[in-house]
Amino acid sequence: MANEPSVIVFDVNETLSDMAPMRDRFAQIGCPPDHARLWFASLLRDGFALTAAGDMGRFAEIGAEALRILLTDVHLTMAADQAVDYIMKGFMMLDLHPDVPDGVRSLKAAGYRLVTLTNGATRVAEQLFARAGIHEEFEALLSVEEAPAWKPAASSYKYAARVCGVDTSELLLVAVHPWDIHGASRAGLGTAWVNRAGAPYPSYFANPDHVIEDLGELTHALAS
Amino acid sequence: MANEPSVIVFDVNETLSDMAPMRDRFAQIGCPPDHARLWFASLLRDGFALTAAGDMGRFAEIGAEALRILLTDVHLTMAADQAVDYIMKGFMMLDLHPDVPDGVRSLKAAGYRLVTLTNGATRVAEQLFARAGIHEEFEALLSVEEAPAWKPAASSYKYAARVCGVDTSELLLVAVHPWDIHGASRAGLGTAWVNRAGAPYPSYFANPDHVIEDLGELTHALAS
Repeated sequence: MANEPSVIVFDVNETLSDMAPMRDRFAQIGCPPDHARLWFASLLRDGFALTAAGDMGRFAEIGAEALRILLTDVHLTMAADQAVDYIMKGFMMLDLHPDVPDGVRSLKAAGYRLVTLTNGATRVAEQLFARAGIHEEFEALLSVEEAPAWKPAASSYKYAARVCGVDTSELLLVAVHPWDIHGASRAGLGTAWVNRAGAPYPSYFANPDHVIEDLGELTHALAS
Repeated sequence: MANEPSVIVFDVNETLSDMAPMRDRFAQIGCPPDHARLWFASLLRDGFALTAAGDMGRFAEIGAEALRILLTDVHLTMAADQAVDYIMKGFMMLDLHPDVPDGVRSLKAAGYRLVTLTNGATRVAEQLFARAGIHEEFEALLSVEEAPAWKPAASSYKYAARVCGVDTSELLLVAVHPWDIHGASRAGLGTAWVNRAGAPYPSYFANPDHVIEDLGELTHALAS
């Protein structure tokens, strides 16, 4: 396990934002609701493929285009352009999981510095936090757009450490995605896996240092 | 575009094998048929995440475990172990797309050296080819298991070039997956995208040198 963390680094999409309403959006354009998961897995698959090949995509661009391709064999209830727009707008209008605001305030009160690190754009976190009134708890909202590569490449986490002026071992990554826990662990960060749904953790990824059911548990988990 | 190729490198899963029957298998264990696509996208997402983090997974292990996790919220018609086994066995028993045997023979007759390069195990290609009687057309069946990394990392394609004793520019990768075309193109190979379903090509990936509807078109495309 890494050192005692001084900075908590939050992943954003699905870790802080509740993506469940995306299922309804997909249903509204004429898709099976599970296409929300297929879309997000395809988006990450292609983004990670670019990363593995040494390149870098833009999250929103891959998201919109992977979606357009996914919709080519769906009988939509509206024009394809409109449908893509409707899904992408929905993605920008998600709310925080209910446990996030209090969890964030509790960590801030415990003396941790708080930042975000997303493969997407920083404005997603900005909008999420502005609506919930917790923007001021965060020292910085970071995106891999300013880093050499997407997460889970080591250079993305090192970028965050550099911006925060600390060693990677002083960072603790909080994420719902096992691939993010893996990359952070390999880069020397401490890790906390948020497992709200009681899912199994894949054995092919490095284990998290902490497993929590919601953000409210993290202050306590770090203190013990 | 790369040099005139001397060696044709075939991707295996979905490029040579027809994965359509996987939909029926998923239905038979109690899943929506589209879970076949969600499973395969999740498998690749996690495999590429390991690659991006500088690590290497085993295709069959990730496949079985990503499947088990995917099935945790499905009401199955059989025990989970049995269901995972049924899907993974089905994956090993797929047939070639109908255009493959004649396409392969035509390329061999035109003087090309033929190899495969898969992120999976070489025995998948062995079994596919043995059943179809085209094993002897191939000089070697390669897997990234012997390479430094999975496709689409450059080192995977360079491994194939090394085994074949040629520069990467003498290889031509044939694949249905745009991420594979991208990685091969970045590594200096020529590329042919097999687009059997008339799908759009994602603009965030490097374009293929050739686009063909089936393997039968490739000999002609390379000659012109």
